[in-house]
Amino acid sequence: MTGKLYGVGLGPGDPELMTLKAHRLIGAADVIAYPALVGGESFARTIALGAMTEDVEEIMIPVPMTVERGPAQMAYDTGAAAIAQRLETGKNVVVLCEGDPFFYGSFMYLFSRLSERFETEVVPGVTSITACAAALGQPLTARNEVLTIIPGPMNEALMQERIKAADAVAIMKVGRHLPKIRRVLEALNLSQNAGYIERATLENQIVAPLADAPETAPYFSMILITKGKDPWL
Amino acid sequence: MTGKLYGVGLGPGDPELMTLKAHRLIGAADVIAYPALVGGESFARTIALGAMTEDVEEIMIPVPMTVERGPAQMAYDTGAAAIAQRLETGKNVVVLCEGDPFFYGSFMYLFSRLSERFETEVVPGVTSITACAAALGQPLTARNEVLTIIPGPMNEALMQERIKAADAVAIMKVGRHLPKIRRVLEALNLSQNAGYIERATLENQIVAPLADAPETAPYFSMILITKGKDPWL
Repeated sequence: MTGKLYGVGLGPGDPELMTLKAHRLIGAADVIAYPALVGGESFARTIALGAMTEDVEEIMIPVPMTVERGPAQMAYDTGAAAIAQRLETGKNVVVLCEGDPFFYGSFMYLFSRLSERFETEVVPGVTSITACAAALGQPLTARNEVLTIIPGPMNEALMQERIKAADAVAIMKVGRHLPKIRRVLEALNLSQNAGYIERATLENQIVAPLADAPETAPYFSMILITKGKDPWL
Repeated sequence: MTGKLYGVGLGPGDPELMTLKAHRLIGAADVIAYPALVGGESFARTIALGAMTEDVEEIMIPVPMTVERGPAQMAYDTGAAAIAQRLETGKNVVVLCEGDPFFYGSFMYLFSRLSERFETEVVPGVTSITACAAALGQPLTARNEVLTIIPGPMNEALMQERIKAADAVAIMKVGRHLPKIRRVLEALNLSQNAGYIERATLENQIVAPLADAPETAPYFSMILITKGKDPWL
């Protein structure tokens, strides 16, 4: 009997936003695997730490942050091989995933390497999108509105087009793209409708109207735009 | 001292996909409030039941499902007044919300009536979007892909345009709009990329390629489309 592979969403950062199921599976796991920046901390492990048992085996997958995909692919090859070895001996392996495993997550790189060979279950988690809306105190979408989720690196003209076509927009991974996003929203006359959220649900969370946002944004920041097309009274 | 109002996301249906925070707040609440279809069950209450204490006070808000908004607005006026009365006596009130409170949820109708008068906290929950991706076993979005969320009632021409412009699409509230959605996906040559999910995470869940989906879909069904633009190997 081979073991079962779990991709477990941990939510946006506050450990209490983990699901009951994630908490149970982490506590019962034989092996816990997680990606980490080379030489850095694993955010996923930090979220899950309180749910982990002391004697659980850990597989850390150090992922280099290079522009070329080759080095990261090699890291996932190595990580997948280490996980496969445990699964083959009948151990269950829980892969820790920030947010949700299938929503802009790195779990898909392990999923594509392992799910055909091993029984796999994905446990959804709270995404940063709705965590940011909650932090902002602003409903995201009502009734028949369209919500579009855009990654910050998108080119300026296309971003303008996509924002124009939606009723509500979440721009993820803002980081160094903040000046470009400000220009796009200015051009669309939507700056007043935009809120900025940094490190949602963590202790050092920042929430502000876009006009009052810091000059530089970290990778884990988001801008939410609602147009109020369909007022919710 | 007035009480605090909580809008608490319960996730897509499996009670184990509730967050630890939702579970704690529900167990500690003085009063639990929830919308229910007139004469019907409350899906939110069903999800939360195992976390509720026996002696908690319940406020049921019966919401009529009419096309005109007037009757539902009156129901939320009445419900908000009942909640306000408890908050004014210093009791904490937890409003139960399927999925996430700010993501196509009815909590916004209470939020708009109460959040300016009473301290309010929104606790995000797992949405049906990522729960459906997990059920389908198919990653939703990678890297710099755009995800668009479309409600089923959208008109056919516009729906076609929006789907064409996105890398991944979730169509919510499929219900009686299934034949229209099939036509749109056929016209875009995307039927092979579409998965159908009904009652995700519940015992009677149905998951199928769109080609094998039932002829009639309930309101709580979804179609996910991925174009594989950005392969995740």
